[in-house]
Amino acid sequence: MIIRIDRLQTAMPPPSDPDPIGASAVQELLGGKFGEMSTFMNYTYQSFNFRNRQGARPFYDLLASIAAEEFGHIELVSTAINTMLTGAADGAPGESGSLGDVKGTRNTQQFLAGGGSALVQDSMGKPWNGDYVNATGDLIEDLTFNFFLETGARNNKLKIYEMVDHPAARALTGYLLVRGGVHQVAYARAIELLTGAELMKMFPSPRIPTEKIPECQPHLQRGEHLKLYRFSPSDYQEIAAVFKGPHPETGEELHVAEELHPEGAPPFDLPEQPAVFAPGPEPEEIAEIATKLREAAGLPREPTGVVANDGAGVIGKVKDALS
Amino acid sequence: MIIRIDRLQTAMPPPSDPDPIGASAVQELLGGKFGEMSTFMNYTYQSFNFRNRQGARPFYDLLASIAAEEFGHIELVSTAINTMLTGAADGAPGESGSLGDVKGTRNTQQFLAGGGSALVQDSMGKPWNGDYVNATGDLIEDLTFNFFLETGARNNKLKIYEMVDHPAARALTGYLLVRGGVHQVAYARAIELLTGAELMKMFPSPRIPTEKIPECQPHLQRGEHLKLYRFSPSDYQEIAAVFKGPHPETGEELHVAEELHPEGAPPFDLPEQPAVFAPGPEPEEIAEIATKLREAAGLPREPTGVVANDGAGVIGKVKDALS
Amino acid sequence: MIIRIDRLQTAMPPPSDPDPIGASAVQELLGGKFGEMSTFMNYTYQSFNFRNRQGARPFYDLLASIAAEEFGHIELVSTAINTMLTGAADGAPGESGSLGDVKGTRNTQQFLAGGGSALVQDSMGKPWNGDYVNATGDLIEDLTFNFFLETGARNNKLKIYEMVDHPAARALTGYLLVRGGVHQVAYARAIELLTGAELMKMFPSPRIPTEKIPECQPHLQRGEHLKLYRFSPSDYQEIAAVFKGPHPETGEELHVAEELHPEGAPPFDLPEQPAVFAPGPEPEEIAEIATKLREAAGLPREPTGVVANDGAGVIGKVKDALS
Amino acid sequence: MIIRIDRLQTAMPPPSDPDPIGASAVQELLGGKFGEMSTFMNYTYQSFNFRNRQGARPFYDLLASIAAEEFGHIELVSTAINTMLTGAADGAPGESGSLGDVKGTRNTQQFLAGGGSALVQDSMGKPWNGDYVNATGDLIEDLTFNFFLETGARNNKLKIYEMVDHPAARALTGYLLVRGGVHQVAYARAIELLTGAELMKMFPSPRIPTEKIPECQPHLQRGEHLKLYRFSPSDYQEIAAVFKGPHPETGEELHVAEELHPEGAPPFDLPEQPAVFAPGPEPEEIAEIATKLREAAGLPREPTGVVANDGAGVIGKVKDALS
Amino acid sequence: MIIRIDRLQTAMPPPSDPDPIGASAVQELLGGKFGEMSTFMNYTYQSFNFRNRQGARPFYDLLASIAAEEFGHIELVSTAINTMLTGAADGAPGESGSLGDVKGTRNTQQFLAGGGSALVQDSMGKPWNGDYVNATGDLIEDLTFNFFLETGARNNKLKIYEMVDHPAARALTGYLLVRGGVHQVAYARAIELLTGAELMKMFPSPRIPTEKIPECQPHLQRGEHLKLYRFSPSDYQEIAAVFKGPHPETGEELHVAEELHPEGAPPFDLPEQPAVFAPGPEPEEIAEIATKLREAAGLPREPTGVVANDGAGVIGKVKDALS
Amino acid sequence: MIIRIDRLQTAMPPPSDPDPIGASAVQELLGGKFGEMSTFMNYTYQSFNFRNRQGARPFYDLLASIAAEEFGHIELVSTAINTMLTGAADGAPGESGSLGDVKGTRNTQQFLAGGGSALVQDSMGKPWNGDYVNATGDLIEDLTFNFFLETGARNNKLKIYEMVDHPAARALTGYLLVRGGVHQVAYARAIELLTGAELMKMFPSPRIPTEKIPECQPHLQRGEHLKLYRFSPSDYQEIAAVFKGPHPETGEELHVAEELHPEGAPPFDLPEQPAVFAPGPEPEEIAEIATKLREAAGLPREPTGVVANDGAGVIGKVKDALS
Repeated sequence: MIIRIDRLQTAMPPPSDPDPIGASAVQELLGGKFGEMSTFMNYTYQSFNFRNRQGARPFYDLLASIAAEEFGHIELVSTAINTMLTGAADGAPGESGSLGDVKGTRNTQQFLAGGGSALVQDSMGKPWNGDYVNATGDLIEDLTFNFFLETGARNNKLKIYEMVDHPAARALTGYLLVRGGVHQVAYARAIELLTGAELMKMFPSPRIPTEKIPECQPHLQRGEHLKLYRFSPSDYQEIAAVFKGPHPETGEELHVAEELHPEGAPPFDLPEQPAVFAPGPEPEEIAEIATKLREAAGLPREPTGVVANDGAGVIGKVKDALS
Repeated sequence: MIIRIDRLQTAMPPPSDPDPIGASAVQELLGGKFGEMSTFMNYTYQSFNFRNRQGARPFYDLLASIAAEEFGHIELVSTAINTMLTGAADGAPGESGSLGDVKGTRNTQQFLAGGGSALVQDSMGKPWNGDYVNATGDLIEDLTFNFFLETGARNNKLKIYEMVDHPAARALTGYLLVRGGVHQVAYARAIELLTGAELMKMFPSPRIPTEKIPECQPHLQRGEHLKLYRFSPSDYQEIAAVFKGPHPETGEELHVAEELHPEGAPPFDLPEQPAVFAPGPEPEEIAEIATKLREAAGLPREPTGVVANDGAGVIGKVKDALS
Repeated sequence: MIIRIDRLQTAMPPPSDPDPIGASAVQELLGGKFGEMSTFMNYTYQSFNFRNRQGARPFYDLLASIAAEEFGHIELVSTAINTMLTGAADGAPGESGSLGDVKGTRNTQQFLAGGGSALVQDSMGKPWNGDYVNATGDLIEDLTFNFFLETGARNNKLKIYEMVDHPAARALTGYLLVRGGVHQVAYARAIELLTGAELMKMFPSPRIPTEKIPECQPHLQRGEHLKLYRFSPSDYQEIAAVFKGPHPETGEELHVAEELHPEGAPPFDLPEQPAVFAPGPEPEEIAEIATKLREAAGLPREPTGVVANDGAGVIGKVKDALS
Repeated sequence: MIIRIDRLQTAMPPPSDPDPIGASAVQELLGGKFGEMSTFMNYTYQSFNFRNRQGARPFYDLLASIAAEEFGHIELVSTAINTMLTGAADGAPGESGSLGDVKGTRNTQQFLAGGGSALVQDSMGKPWNGDYVNATGDLIEDLTFNFFLETGARNNKLKIYEMVDHPAARALTGYLLVRGGVHQVAYARAIELLTGAELMKMFPSPRIPTEKIPECQPHLQRGEHLKLYRFSPSDYQEIAAVFKGPHPETGEELHVAEELHPEGAPPFDLPEQPAVFAPGPEPEEIAEIATKLREAAGLPREPTGVVANDGAGVIGKVKDALS
Repeated sequence: MIIRIDRLQTAMPPPSDPDPIGASAVQELLGGKFGEMSTFMNYTYQSFNFRNRQGARPFYDLLASIAAEEFGHIELVSTAINTMLTGAADGAPGESGSLGDVKGTRNTQQFLAGGGSALVQDSMGKPWNGDYVNATGDLIEDLTFNFFLETGARNNKLKIYEMVDHPAARALTGYLLVRGGVHQVAYARAIELLTGAELMKMFPSPRIPTEKIPECQPHLQRGEHLKLYRFSPSDYQEIAAVFKGPHPETGEELHVAEELHPEGAPPFDLPEQPAVFAPGPEPEEIAEIATKLREAAGLPREPTGVVANDGAGVIGKVKDALS
Repeated sequence: MIIRIDRLQTAMPPPSDPDPIGASAVQELLGGKFGEMSTFMNYTYQSFNFRNRQGARPFYDLLASIAAEEFGHIELVSTAINTMLTGAADGAPGESGSLGDVKGTRNTQQFLAGGGSALVQDSMGKPWNGDYVNATGDLIEDLTFNFFLETGARNNKLKIYEMVDHPAARALTGYLLVRGGVHQVAYARAIELLTGAELMKMFPSPRIPTEKIPECQPHLQRGEHLKLYRFSPSDYQEIAAVFKGPHPETGEELHVAEELHPEGAPPFDLPEQPAVFAPGPEPEEIAEIATKLREAAGLPREPTGVVANDGAGVIGKVKDALS
């Protein structure tokens, strides 16, 4: 069971110039074979299906808590894509040509099936599917796969970093490279403890030092490459039995974070896009109903949610910036 | 971002007689078009992709919090499947014939790709895929779909209830029918508030009264059909603006739960199944390493995790019961 | 554009002993690579996409009219499957165990996704898909494919005939072998006329004489193997320019039928199956509403549709026979 | 069983400037999840699989007759795509570079797998598949889905209208929005009659008035938004029991058409495209053979088919216009 | 480019009692994610796509030569499946019921799409697909995947060994476990040489000693677990630079074989199965034509091919044994 | 079992200007329904699954030897794609923007999943799958399909020739059209011998004379259109019984080649592409290790492999030419 907190694991930039072609490519990090849907779902099902979890508790805890972090990663990739698509479909709803600018984009379904938004697909528009999950139940085999999966994921993050220079994509990959790196290390360490094979010697893989990426620097400086969060108030305490020892790239000591989870940041309230009916061709109508419902329920007049661009004025400014 | 709690949303029975054919059918509730992967992922991505969430906050909160509950549902369906498969592949690892009993089961991959465990597939072995997600961004359209999705999900839960009489399947469907019913009502209510269309008159759909199912009774008696949980310590407060009014089947008042989430219950620690290498052909070896690691990390000698069958003795009893 | 006539192209038997395993196999003739969805959709799209149709009118007419006949074939295969499934899911809706008899059937989705009914899938539960259509626009290539497609279809009909001995399956394959044979001949003839290659020498393919199948006899005796219907009141007259000459197996003269289409027969009104909610868990409720609506609209009190088992009494008898 | 009439349900414009990128997008209306293949096949299989059709005749008739109309819709979308692709692949067959202009188009298979023609795919090149069909047998559930399906279809038609301004795409969406709207209304009405839920209040959905689209106007003026055709000489008479009452957008009275089907218009005979071998690299050769075959069969010297551009001269003009 | 030798890499048993359910399961080793199609195609494409192969020649040679061996593995798995299916579809072609015995088998397409023969599918009937190939071009990453792939393949071979006790399945898995083990070792060794990570400590993985499997013993005794073949008359000589050092399970020295390839054995000529039209409903007719063609071409009267059951008499005996 | 020779079946040009959009299209010839994966795998499995191969030896030999040639074809198409992609992703690894040039290419996975290299996909990025294989076991039916498959393959080669004018694509299609033509003839001839149907009259199909393509001329002049290779030192001798008679386009005599296989040519060693990590972000590191390993193994200091651009200097020149 989970509890949800309406914050992103790291701050993401507000919408700027839209980049729908770039957003098509970033889909690889969401619904690709090595995307965050794969990491999230692999570790989640490996934890669900774990047998004799008491007997192997440190490893169960490792899978279960990393799985929880990965939810935040599908959220971040979606945020990046949605940010990059904001403003791409500017125009009036129901008018011929109002989506003409994206007729030739690579992923048309981001606009036809979505509202200028992320899909559960890869960079070629192929949907993520459940057979990307390897949950064999054999602990060593699953960890071997996880190490490979994180290696493939790191490859893809690096390449998307090279391919797409939109600020949202750069912020995204800078963060994910650091946190994905922690998971890659964690699985290597687990295998090492179970078999004696020194996988730490394989880092970095691919062979690009993480510190070389400027967008990784802020996260490295905060030590985000060294700590594993439990993502639970009272569970998963035994990750401490696995996640320790020197970091393979820097030699610093790995450790379990004292906080439950990263502090993170509130998301931007992405502005409406009426041409793609998000949240409808006439968003004001919905907003009016919402206000009335809020009042009827005795809730504050202003929305209670916390967003990065708090205050109606800020939202307006984002919209101005886009027009 | 999420926090994970290592409890199930409702208590599930321990392993009893295995039922691999039944477990193949129950997959429909996990990876089928109308399975819990679909409900979880639809609402999750609808919340990620929501535009102008401040302007439509009550509806955003509704989607976001129900999404959180659905994670618990994929966990429950997986638990049911894993429970039903426990004991089906009894025998020694590496011996010819030790999996002979399941050669003719309907989903052989539960044993070949899994360790006698759930897969992200439907009852025909087809993987769940991301194009089952409809997140158009158009709020009314997405709610219309969600209402239909919950209707289809209710259909499938009822039919699995009719088809599979294993205790785990019955406990599962009894609970899911009640909680899924809450979501079906919630979406109907949201549409009603946005458009005036009285969808409440369509209940129950399919036309089988929930109270007719004996396994639903305990949950109905606890009022689980009337309340929506926020699943968040401080967010999603505006669900109260939508989820209210009379329940369409009973006339009782709908309301937001005071607790963050259902109290639930600890999961059973499902016993090892060496013939399918879960958690390995030699589970003792892993357990020994785990114990040493725990000690080296200054953790308690006994596993810290809480499971329904706490104490090594109980696990043994479950294993005895299976042999 | 089409007009629809509520009759089957040939009479089909009423429900008898159900055969769900057999019905799983018959799906190959519906949604398989060589099933009737493939023949229907291939010729339909080849006709839609035909370029310079005036210049090649006899061949356009051939494709367009055979396409029309194929709609009747997907209808017949569906009818056979539905007939074979009738009675398989007997029991009360909403009761544990009422679908227990089909827990182990090969295609569980016929009951979970359908109401004891046909799916757009093959015998392994894989959905038919649009890439089974070859409409290259190159007339000779498309005809070459069509000849191969009909050969593959004939193979599958013969094998289903060998595999499934339910009366509905036998009636189905007996008819389809004869009519599919006409199409196989028609395409071979068209290639012959365009290129001079004598494909008639390849018959029968597979090498089993059609007359050897007892269930084909009634249709052969009516000359159904010799005539092509236009399936249109005024169009497709130029099929006469292609469909002529001796039949490759019997030497009799091929010709265009004088009737627009086969006389056919009314379908059986297959009885309700409440356990799978078809047409609902409480069919009587629907029937009552229907009666009222009919009255309100000034329609006759009795249903206007023509079915093989006309009169409420007959429907009851079918139901009695099943219980 | 069907009869086929070689006319389109509405007049479509002749080829003009080709728009292959636009034609890639329009595929969404053919093979997408909410495309016309989905509407055609859903209603068709719902009618095939209908149980107790006599008892629920008005609803059976509704599904069966709308299914028949949908065939005309896949024909229209294909026509639009084929029209938009005409002239895109101009050049001599077998010459390097003759398809160079479309090397970078979004759907290369329209030229490689097709002859500059429609495929059974969506806008990302994913094939339509049979699991897009929901035919559960539960009448209320199927109608709920159909209402949602038409809503999704309307969304996609509106967005394609916004995205693609080619005359063929505009004519297509103008017509389909009106006729699809009729189906959306019909299903809402049917649910209303069965359950009392007033779905009429949900119109228009998405929230864009149909009358706002200029290309819808001619059809609205002819009252095409108010009538349902039976599409059958003698069957499906009971649709009158369902399709009545006020139109939810205009308040005008819904009614059953007196004509069997729309008058429609003859299709354009789309010119040959030798570079993609349609109908072959040497179309004249085929035309010569066709002429001889016609003569040998005693048919008129001129093709008997009726096309919008009747007379060889007109075809030539279309071809001239493209070069 | 390849040269083909009409021998199997190891001797396989002749047909005995058919086991179609078992043969459905063995498909996992052919078309499953971890089946031999995956090993064959992964290494093949990794070798095709290798950049700077001169600079990394020992590793290129390793991939290229192992790829060549894998062709022999898809041949062996197919042989096992075909052997297990021989006799399952006994009966006369074109007779109702002649395939009745396999109506309920798990993979009906082995008989409907195949002639009682192997398909390019997994144990659930899902086709192998090209996205199972990981050829990233990053040598270390590809080797990491290959090591994982061989681990997954070993898991599946062990489980099929446990699940299916047909002599053909046991002979198959006994051989493949040994030879696949060599590849698993080779990739671990390559990673070790490139990075220093001691993957040899991970053996055996899964944790079942190879020598424990009786069917592996003959191959172990011949030293098949220690040698890598070059599978080329003059190429791939640099595998010697990688494949050396002690075997991780036995400590014996790894080495490059002196022979090009295993001696292997001729295949059995599997008898005709007329009920599934293999090689046709009337095999004698084909045989007669073949004899005439051979004579006309000046070839020997007896077939020139070498098979395990040479001489018409032996084939007859196999057939007798089956009846 | 196969032996592999590290040469291409024909010489291919070195890298020149990259053409990633063109390379996306050429994928159709690799992983498309009618691509070389399909020809390779169809004939391979038809040979594996052949029943009564002694009785039908000339036909078995035909399938088995053509299958062997097709391996060389997937190698050639991959080579062409890799050549066309070389230089497209120039830039430093790990730098933002270094893959910016290919952000908008049609197949982004050639760079994200591959290292600027071929994928097992078609021109729309859909993976090849095993259900493209038709191996029914019915010899005449399989040959009918093979003839159609080669026709579809010829269509696609001609269209790619028209669409993509990169030197590598032209060299590829020029060769494949000639050799694929031999297979098309071979299967037509086989059908003719088995049934008497004169399929030779269908050539050329599509109706473009092979000699019209300039890039085919060198191969025609060497007589490559007239001979079939056995691709085996001692097997497949009976192809001589089938492959004879006049060539349908030229009337020259078909015959079995005296050489085992085409002489072919060494492949180019395609230069490293560090931005896509092929063979790694730091190729020199790998090269150094390789050199040391070679020395340690007593191999020559220079790589033993034979490539078209032998000598480090030439590789450098290729790289210079690209920058």
